[in-house]
Amino acid sequence: MPYELYYWDSIQGRGEFVRLTLEEAGADYIDVCRGPASKGQGISAMMAIMGGRSDADIPFAPPFLKDGDLIIPHVANILMYLGPTLGLAPKEEAQRHVLNGLQLTITDLVAEVHDTHHPIATSKYYEDQKEEAKARAAEFIGNRIPKYLGYFERVLQQNPQGPAHIFGGGLTYVDLSLFQVYEGLRYAFPRATAHFPDRYPHLSALHAAVMKRPNIARYLRSDRRIPFNENGIFRRYPELDRDMA
Amino acid sequence: MPYELYYWDSIQGRGEFVRLTLEEAGADYIDVCRGPASKGQGISAMMAIMGGRSDADIPFAPPFLKDGDLIIPHVANILMYLGPTLGLAPKEEAQRHVLNGLQLTITDLVAEVHDTHHPIATSKYYEDQKEEAKARAAEFIGNRIPKYLGYFERVLQQNPQGPAHIFGGGLTYVDLSLFQVYEGLRYAFPRATAHFPDRYPHLSALHAAVMKRPNIARYLRSDRRIPFNENGIFRRYPELDRDMA
Repeated sequence: MPYELYYWDSIQGRGEFVRLTLEEAGADYIDVCRGPASKGQGISAMMAIMGGRSDADIPFAPPFLKDGDLIIPHVANILMYLGPTLGLAPKEEAQRHVLNGLQLTITDLVAEVHDTHHPIATSKYYEDQKEEAKARAAEFIGNRIPKYLGYFERVLQQNPQGPAHIFGGGLTYVDLSLFQVYEGLRYAFPRATAHFPDRYPHLSALHAAVMKRPNIARYLRSDRRIPFNENGIFRRYPELDRDMA
Repeated sequence: MPYELYYWDSIQGRGEFVRLTLEEAGADYIDVCRGPASKGQGISAMMAIMGGRSDADIPFAPPFLKDGDLIIPHVANILMYLGPTLGLAPKEEAQRHVLNGLQLTITDLVAEVHDTHHPIATSKYYEDQKEEAKARAAEFIGNRIPKYLGYFERVLQQNPQGPAHIFGGGLTYVDLSLFQVYEGLRYAFPRATAHFPDRYPHLSALHAAVMKRPNIARYLRSDRRIPFNENGIFRRYPELDRDMA
């Protein structure tokens, strides 16, 4: 039975971290919201699960994964669940928690990216909080990107098995997520990230290596890869971007 | 060998979710930053690990747990790691991911609580972002608390084994975390949360039940429980509080 991924149909958003993992592994999955209502798919199928008035295990928000009867919400949780089965995580349980720790730092970073355009209220338009967004984006570019990316660069550099991967000697789902974070930041803040190859050479090399993996390259060329847009997490608002010193 | 918890010594903060779990289980642990430098403890012991220039698995931020050589960062990850050993999580691995999904929703809620007093920049004082904090807190009180707590109330209500616990028929670490969230929100926003017992009866009953558990009650009376204060996540700033309609 294929995995069922439930996530908004018109954005990369948080769901993209899961899509990349399923695509790299060549896993059999349905991107449910992008499917036809005639097959019981589409957004309404997701809403039916989220609004269920009798079920246990209702998710708070997308994305969530359905594997048979099991419903697994939250990106890091989904990836930790899938990782060993898809061969993208260590077999040893304790080491999976180390990997999960890295992914949860990405979770925090992604939440901060979201708040660069929505610092006050998710329920309001960007245009209604643009001034606060400028202040928050300046902080993000000036302090938070260096803190997060400096950290991941350091973890790569200190990896006893070499800087090609964030954990151990082979590809894990966190490598794929770092690719997506790098790609998203480059899209959202082209000026503020122009120095990435110089400042974060290992991370830049990892990004380039993931992009060339056959399954990822094929996915990125396909129409399954939704282009970045200004409804997702990574949004290109030139007024929030700035050159880095 | 006792567990070693690394977290700031003067606040409950995110570390408190781990402390509550260790305390409920009666686990042998050292709250390292609160220990004496003469024993190799204190803040500098934490900083030494975080600043390590050769180790793999360096954490991005506290809290993190040390279990022998293993370093596990992030609250939800620590609790998922500890849960089965301490008898506060299901034995079956797939069900542990369901539980982890609930904890990760708490993680998101806690990040939003933090941002009510720091909506623009963690690197700046609250006083320098007070106006934005008022706007964000109004959104949090008006929209986000009802969304999150309404969700948890519904999960309790729809628990097939009854509303006494958030998952299954026995205590899990997520119950303890919900106690802490409830307690923290009551502290930070006494006016906005005055209606909690009426609006969220199952959650209120869970909070009361956890508070009476012998190990928790003993802990809350001890000097190991740091009082809430305005350096933590849950801060009482009366200007951010308001009555709920």
